Amino acid sequence: MTLEEKASLCSGETAWSTKAIAKLGIPSIFMTDGPHGLRKAEGFDFTNSVPATCFPTASALASSWNPALAQKMGEALGIESQANDVQILLGPGVNMKRSPLGGRNFEYFSEDPILAGKIATSFINGVQSQGVGTSMKHFAANSQEAERMSNSSNVNERTLNEIYFPAFEMAVKEAQPWTVMCSYNKVNGVYASENPYLLNQILKEKWGFKGFVVSDWGAVNERALGVDAGLHLEMPASGGFNDKKIVEAVKKGTLSEARLDQIVTDLLAVTLKAKDSHKKGVIVDKQKHNDLARQVSGECIVLLKNDNAILPLKSSLKKIAIVGNFAKTPRYQGAGSSQVRPTQILNSLDELKKIAKGTQFSFSTGYNTEGETDEVKIAEAVQNAKNSELVIVFAGLPDSYESEGYDRNNMDLPAGHNKLISAVSEVNKNIIVVLLNGAPVSMPWKNDVTAIVEAYLGGQAGGGAIADVLTGKVNPSGKLSETFPMRLEDTPTAMDFPSKDGNANYGEGIFIGYRYYDKKKIEPNFPFGFGLSYTTFSYSDIKANTTAAKDSDDIAISVKVKNTGKVAGKEVAELYVHEQESEVARPENELKHFEKVALLPGEEKTVTFHLTSRDFAYFNSKSHDWAIKSGKFDIRVGGSSRNLPLQQTIDIQSTKTAKVVLTHESLFKEFKNAPNSAVIYAQLVQSFTGDNKKAETEDEKKAASFLEAMLADMPINKFLLLSGGKFTEENLQDILKAANHN
Amino acid sequence: MTLEEKASLCSGETAWSTKAIAKLGIPSIFMTDGPHGLRKAEGFDFTNSVPATCFPTASALASSWNPALAQKMGEALGIESQANDVQILLGPGVNMKRSPLGGRNFEYFSEDPILAGKIATSFINGVQSQGVGTSMKHFAANSQEAERMSNSSNVNERTLNEIYFPAFEMAVKEAQPWTVMCSYNKVNGVYASENPYLLNQILKEKWGFKGFVVSDWGAVNERALGVDAGLHLEMPASGGFNDKKIVEAVKKGTLSEARLDQIVTDLLAVTLKAKDSHKKGVIVDKQKHNDLARQVSGECIVLLKNDNAILPLKSSLKKIAIVGNFAKTPRYQGAGSSQVRPTQILNSLDELKKIAKGTQFSFSTGYNTEGETDEVKIAEAVQNAKNSELVIVFAGLPDSYESEGYDRNNMDLPAGHNKLISAVSEVNKNIIVVLLNGAPVSMPWKNDVTAIVEAYLGGQAGGGAIADVLTGKVNPSGKLSETFPMRLEDTPTAMDFPSKDGNANYGEGIFIGYRYYDKKKIEPNFPFGFGLSYTTFSYSDIKANTTAAKDSDDIAISVKVKNTGKVAGKEVAELYVHEQESEVARPENELKHFEKVALLPGEEKTVTFHLTSRDFAYFNSKSHDWAIKSGKFDIRVGGSSRNLPLQQTIDIQSTKTAKVVLTHESLFKEFKNAPNSAVIYAQLVQSFTGDNKKAETEDEKKAASFLEAMLADMPINKFLLLSGGKFTEENLQDILKAANHN
Repeated sequence: MTLEEKASLCSGETAWSTKAIAKLGIPSIFMTDGPHGLRKAEGFDFTNSVPATCFPTASALASSWNPALAQKMGEALGIESQANDVQILLGPGVNMKRSPLGGRNFEYFSEDPILAGKIATSFINGVQSQGVGTSMKHFAANSQEAERMSNSSNVNERTLNEIYFPAFEMAVKEAQPWTVMCSYNKVNGVYASENPYLLNQILKEKWGFKGFVVSDWGAVNERALGVDAGLHLEMPASGGFNDKKIVEAVKKGTLSEARLDQIVTDLLAVTLKAKDSHKKGVIVDKQKHNDLARQVSGECIVLLKNDNAILPLKSSLKKIAIVGNFAKTPRYQGAGSSQVRPTQILNSLDELKKIAKGTQFSFSTGYNTEGETDEVKIAEAVQNAKNSELVIVFAGLPDSYESEGYDRNNMDLPAGHNKLISAVSEVNKNIIVVLLNGAPVSMPWKNDVTAIVEAYLGGQAGGGAIADVLTGKVNPSGKLSETFPMRLEDTPTAMDFPSKDGNANYGEGIFIGYRYYDKKKIEPNFPFGFGLSYTTFSYSDIKANTTAAKDSDDIAISVKVKNTGKVAGKEVAELYVHEQESEVARPENELKHFEKVALLPGEEKTVTFHLTSRDFAYFNSKSHDWAIKSGKFDIRVGGSSRNLPLQQTIDIQSTKTAKVVLTHESLFKEFKNAPNSAVIYAQLVQSFTGDNKKAETEDEKKAASFLEAMLADMPINKFLLLSGGKFTEENLQDILKAANHN
Repeated sequence: MTLEEKASLCSGETAWSTKAIAKLGIPSIFMTDGPHGLRKAEGFDFTNSVPATCFPTASALASSWNPALAQKMGEALGIESQANDVQILLGPGVNMKRSPLGGRNFEYFSEDPILAGKIATSFINGVQSQGVGTSMKHFAANSQEAERMSNSSNVNERTLNEIYFPAFEMAVKEAQPWTVMCSYNKVNGVYASENPYLLNQILKEKWGFKGFVVSDWGAVNERALGVDAGLHLEMPASGGFNDKKIVEAVKKGTLSEARLDQIVTDLLAVTLKAKDSHKKGVIVDKQKHNDLARQVSGECIVLLKNDNAILPLKSSLKKIAIVGNFAKTPRYQGAGSSQVRPTQILNSLDELKKIAKGTQFSFSTGYNTEGETDEVKIAEAVQNAKNSELVIVFAGLPDSYESEGYDRNNMDLPAGHNKLISAVSEVNKNIIVVLLNGAPVSMPWKNDVTAIVEAYLGGQAGGGAIADVLTGKVNPSGKLSETFPMRLEDTPTAMDFPSKDGNANYGEGIFIGYRYYDKKKIEPNFPFGFGLSYTTFSYSDIKANTTAAKDSDDIAISVKVKNTGKVAGKEVAELYVHEQESEVARPENELKHFEKVALLPGEEKTVTFHLTSRDFAYFNSKSHDWAIKSGKFDIRVGGSSRNLPLQQTIDIQSTKTAKVVLTHESLFKEFKNAPNSAVIYAQLVQSFTGDNKKAETEDEKKAASFLEAMLADMPINKFLLLSGGKFTEENLQDILKAANHN
């Protein structure tokens, strides 16, 4: 292969396909936007893609807390890809939700990396089981839309490793997505598309990623730097512009040809696999996929409030008022590259009528496309509400509120929606609000309504799934994959989101989502992991196979979950870890495991979780690695991040103590843990204080405690300066040698 | 001078003095810890310094909001320095209070840079008016004690310039302290003692600092790097260790001798001036200084609560119970290097008895030195409380709670103090709590007591000042120079302070203190700028000399302040600026000016503030300079950050629009403001979209708005890749040339 041929393979042929080189037998492969459906189109036409099943969007899917279901959905997407001769589906999106305002939040799973990672892993396994690749995106720290192509996400190493990396890491290790898509933004000043730390070091070397990295469409900056940093494929086509730059760089010697060879080799491996995996003659059973989409959506819906067990709707009800245009014209996906042209659309009004045949439904639109209302619309809705036993208001966010490309300004519903809810709740005491939106909204009317159903953006069959849940055909089992805050001011990024000064400073660090609300003791509107059911569950009998163990041991925690109500249902048992005394700031609770269990009335099951070393670890900024401090950890289990009735304490003996190499800048107190510490310590104190007399008076005690604090936090090389020559460079070398000796 | 002689001048001779070179006529000068009094001692003896007047500590002094008074206090300190042959007093400390837990907060002025800067400027002018130098410290971003000698304060450029620099900047420009002391910590990874950005660029070049920089005691790391970066003097003596390193560096050529020459020249200039300014035979009038200390302290005391006008104490009162050891053994300063050996100590119990001769005072200790109480102590206090018409509880923080060298763990008073207050408030309805502490404390008993007097650490005469305020001899006029938060969780650094992983990430950015509580809409316990008086004040008639002006014009805002009560008093009129629509996140309100006015009953005065360009500016991260966006600014005036009854809007025409040089990475939307923007814009859109048809359907509109957002935030060089060759490198160069042409 000539240098020019190699370089040419590093960018696309068209907007969506790679270059073929016929004489060398290199095929072209085709990629298509996802993640919740195929958006196969010509060039940048965002309105005429081929019809495809629109499954629930990511924020909905994650609310199922059901990886097996995500896998099923992935399989269906794989089949649709095969049927359309698509080799790689561009998804899933696993970015963390820093703020509820992120414009693309509906495309992302969660504020928690473990939940996002598990859903992503299953989704990828599902798609790839059909011989179709995925592109996990957007790597990394891409949590705002504003100025996303230029701003720098400034995130410290610990935060990257504990929050923004793990979903990617888990999926790479457990599902090996064929490709990973780098993000537009810079990370700590360096474009993700030419960031050797992200691509070479972390993704490839540390996690063992075997596929290729593709740029987000237009994310390339300096192409040759990108090749060197580990970016395999530039998309879309750049008309040979950047291929030339690669050739020039190799000729100038700023990029080694061996490096380019490796990049091309990686690329071709996936390309050939993709082409080999193509199945001819696959046909999509559209109705079957629509039914699956409805099933998935039903399991994603989160029941937030259900006073007086008003839901499910009683079959004895004669007249129900359906209010709000979304009942008839549902919002079911977000705008931007992920926008699918659905094979059909189910609306709740029709679906309710089909299921609840004995009930009469009136309908009033309530508001227009932009969520605006007027006196006529309100009056009609109020009239219907007055004449009904119960009102179901469909509200949420209009299309223009949530899109790739820009962020939301606030968490408010359109004024018209809020006004509508208030108006009908004044004339009828039985108000059920159904929300269609991709991210948290504020609910000023929360206390005035009887029930709240969070349906998210549930895909083309979402309207049917809502009807299933309202009527009790499906018992809701979704739980929030993100905190619903009370006020925008309560959010961790409230001071500056989206940031528009060229830098998105991730100042809240590891404290995003529930980690923030817990630490700051802020009451959320609805907490992470929360969701009601038409039945009730109890937790009991937490047991550990050991109460004192090494972190590397098999630590098994079992709990009993029982359906204490009268209908079958599913419960998500959530396991969080809390360290009692940490050496650095840590969250109050961190989700580490969860399991969704189906239970018949009265049925009880034992759920067993197997904890691993990583479940106790934090990322140590000094040793640049995961570390565990020996000590006590509380394992807490329950049905939401704020309702954890079970607790078991385990005394962990660390096998991963932070390996900090002691240097001339290490602190006096750090030598306390060193071998020969007593000798070293005595030597240092002696060199500094000379004859240290005991403090007796109050003033002397005050001075002594000040001196003790001073010394503890003093870098050891300061003794060279402050000991008056008693502590020499040779002494320092001896001490370091002794301290670092294992 | 030989190279060795020059190098030798760059470090001290002893713990406190510089080296003399007799044959060259270079004298030695002597430095002594401050800031609120002289701590002149031998070596590192922290208990036997010479007796000196202990003035109120910095957190108290700033609460006076009275720069003239700070100047007076500075003059007295200058006199005491002269009397003790001290050439440089090591103070003031102007670091910002990031957290109420900072161990050294009592030594610092405020959470607001303008207030800190104005007090510091006057203090420095006062000391230096006596021919004695100051050392403004600790430069920079030194806001925690934990691991202060090694941790890196990671602070972005905007935050440094808007929050952590301005107090230093103002004092350098307006008072030229003879020396500035660099801090122990690193700033963004580089030790302050060898940080060319801090020392050379900002302090020297940008602000025009003319004195020398001295290391905090033991802050030197690599000495030669320090010389190059602008650190003149290493303290204390390092026994020739580092002088050699300087010589070696010059010989190796890694440090230029010209650079060393400049450092030595700067050093000698101050040294000679200091020695020339020495006055012989100055004698301190200790009683006069004690009286001044009492006067200053009286003006620092903040009256936080005074229900039923219980204060000042009525002369008709027959029996008052004084409860709490601090009444007899006051806490009046903090521990560490600033700890002065006072010339005398006034306690409130004795001083009250002297003033309120007609009243009988009982006394019970209530708690011990560490703040612990027991049943016997409580019982005695309760008995006294029962037998009295009114109870004054003295509470606060023991010595061991606040010290240089370590930070507080929480904002709580000792359990014994809280218990004591609760116990006496159960048997007597007239409870006055007097607090002696250097930083905010939580007040679980706030609603159970009638009055709260925050006396801070008021120096040796503080006990007398408290008596003056309680009895009405002095009408309190202090206002909080820092927010008192309701809960520790409410503070901006609650997630991680002090940070112990080697990095103090200033993640809250510019939002510290009231800037945070305002933005997050968190109700503080007592807001910044708040303080009551024994009289009342009204604000009226805000007037501007213009409502539309250039920022460079003289903009004068006048308000009327009236004493509407029955006794003479002083009120601090505070002026805040709020930008209506900013281009980056800005605080709700920022203090820009204040003035303390004395008013007789019924008297009204007009206060006029002159606003300058800087009062409207923010630091632009892209242009790396101060900038103003043309638009509306609200000028708000009142008696506290949360009580600003007057508002005047001014339309500002900017003369300092951010000068962002447009580059190949600048965003499409940034070209909108460029000259020839219309032409450029059309050219770009054409090159990208080709024939752009109008959106008609909902889906097309959705797609169009997504595309518009995409384009706006797209760096212009992306068009090279995405235009399919229609936009060329020549086009780009032409556009940049046109856009940057003025």
